Amino acid sequence: MKIYDISMTIHQKMQVYKNKAEKIPIIEVVSDFETGSSHETSLSMNLHTGTHMDFPLHMIIDGQTSDTLDLAKLIRPVKVLDLTHLIDGIGQKDLVEKGIQPNDFLLFKTRNSYEETFNFEFIYVKEDAAKYLSAQKIAGVGVDGLGVERDQKNHPTHKILFQHDITIIEGLRLKEVKEGTYFMYALPLKIVGSDALPLSVILTEA
Amino acid sequence: MKIYDISMTIHQKMQVYKNKAEKIPIIEVVSDFETGSSHETSLSMNLHTGTHMDFPLHMIIDGQTSDTLDLAKLIRPVKVLDLTHLIDGIGQKDLVEKGIQPNDFLLFKTRNSYEETFNFEFIYVKEDAAKYLSAQKIAGVGVDGLGVERDQKNHPTHKILFQHDITIIEGLRLKEVKEGTYFMYALPLKIVGSDALPLSVILTEA
Repeated sequence: MKIYDISMTIHQKMQVYKNKAEKIPIIEVVSDFETGSSHETSLSMNLHTGTHMDFPLHMIIDGQTSDTLDLAKLIRPVKVLDLTHLIDGIGQKDLVEKGIQPNDFLLFKTRNSYEETFNFEFIYVKEDAAKYLSAQKIAGVGVDGLGVERDQKNHPTHKILFQHDITIIEGLRLKEVKEGTYFMYALPLKIVGSDALPLSVILTEA
Repeated sequence: MKIYDISMTIHQKMQVYKNKAEKIPIIEVVSDFETGSSHETSLSMNLHTGTHMDFPLHMIIDGQTSDTLDLAKLIRPVKVLDLTHLIDGIGQKDLVEKGIQPNDFLLFKTRNSYEETFNFEFIYVKEDAAKYLSAQKIAGVGVDGLGVERDQKNHPTHKILFQHDITIIEGLRLKEVKEGTYFMYALPLKIVGSDALPLSVILTEA
């Protein structure tokens, strides 16, 4: 079985959103063989760092949290769309020819997947594309930027997708994956009551 | 497809090893709609809390770290053995009748899976069982306690298993799973250079 590992590696020099210091993970040795009888490490991390899924609370007051997690929405067929030619954002016009169907879970492969440092001009999903995807009644969207949008006042892309119960995954790494249909296993750390959950994601050939 | 979710949920009242305060995860809101334009949460956690895999560095000076991670060792068939009748630990005598084969990945279902608070007398893998499993050349072992062993001076079970390149998963939840063969997807948060990695684990019917 061919496995594509499409989540980010977590380390202290990884790219983080807008290069904010508070988004850099802290990986710390808390016991070693000089201080104890075993070697132990801890992780402190903003849950929007690395590959993760967003829940509505991230952008909507009193929105749903990770307590509504449903693994069946994350273990399922997905379609990878090659959008590596785009240089700004993903608009409705870039999607209408793609044959999108109701219940599709779409992963957008863009130039973001080739960038290992944070690019303030990362490819994002524009508001008109979010409206189009909602009208098409898709089930989910996965992006290879650390946000599904940037520079849109009041975060309309997030809000439109959440209002239509569309799952949002951010921070994928799709460089090795060609356009096509795959089976996705996106498994979260199941933290209660959160606005995001870290994900480990693989694709297998469908 | 029937999916068994066999990893722990992470929350501030979850069981942690020996009830140590420093092993309790800290889940903290770092931004909300009063302080910012989005709601964000962070997690601080010892990497031996919750469901996780150990790497040799956990118990062996200069042992291998998570940089040697190989997903193929975690995405594979497994055998769940029902050992819920045991009241102390798993010894060689409890395994010899089980028809263990080379390259098996064994998950031991014990009464630990039914306990939501830490039990200092949790079921563990005894040194003689570790030697037996090594001689049988198994590939991996998964336990439903927070440690593969307890109360054994110098941690022989860990060391014997590591010396034989046997993968160790701790903190599984197997209450819903009957003895039998399954396909496991144990996907880690890929943190560099660590003695352990958090896992999200599912079983599917093989």
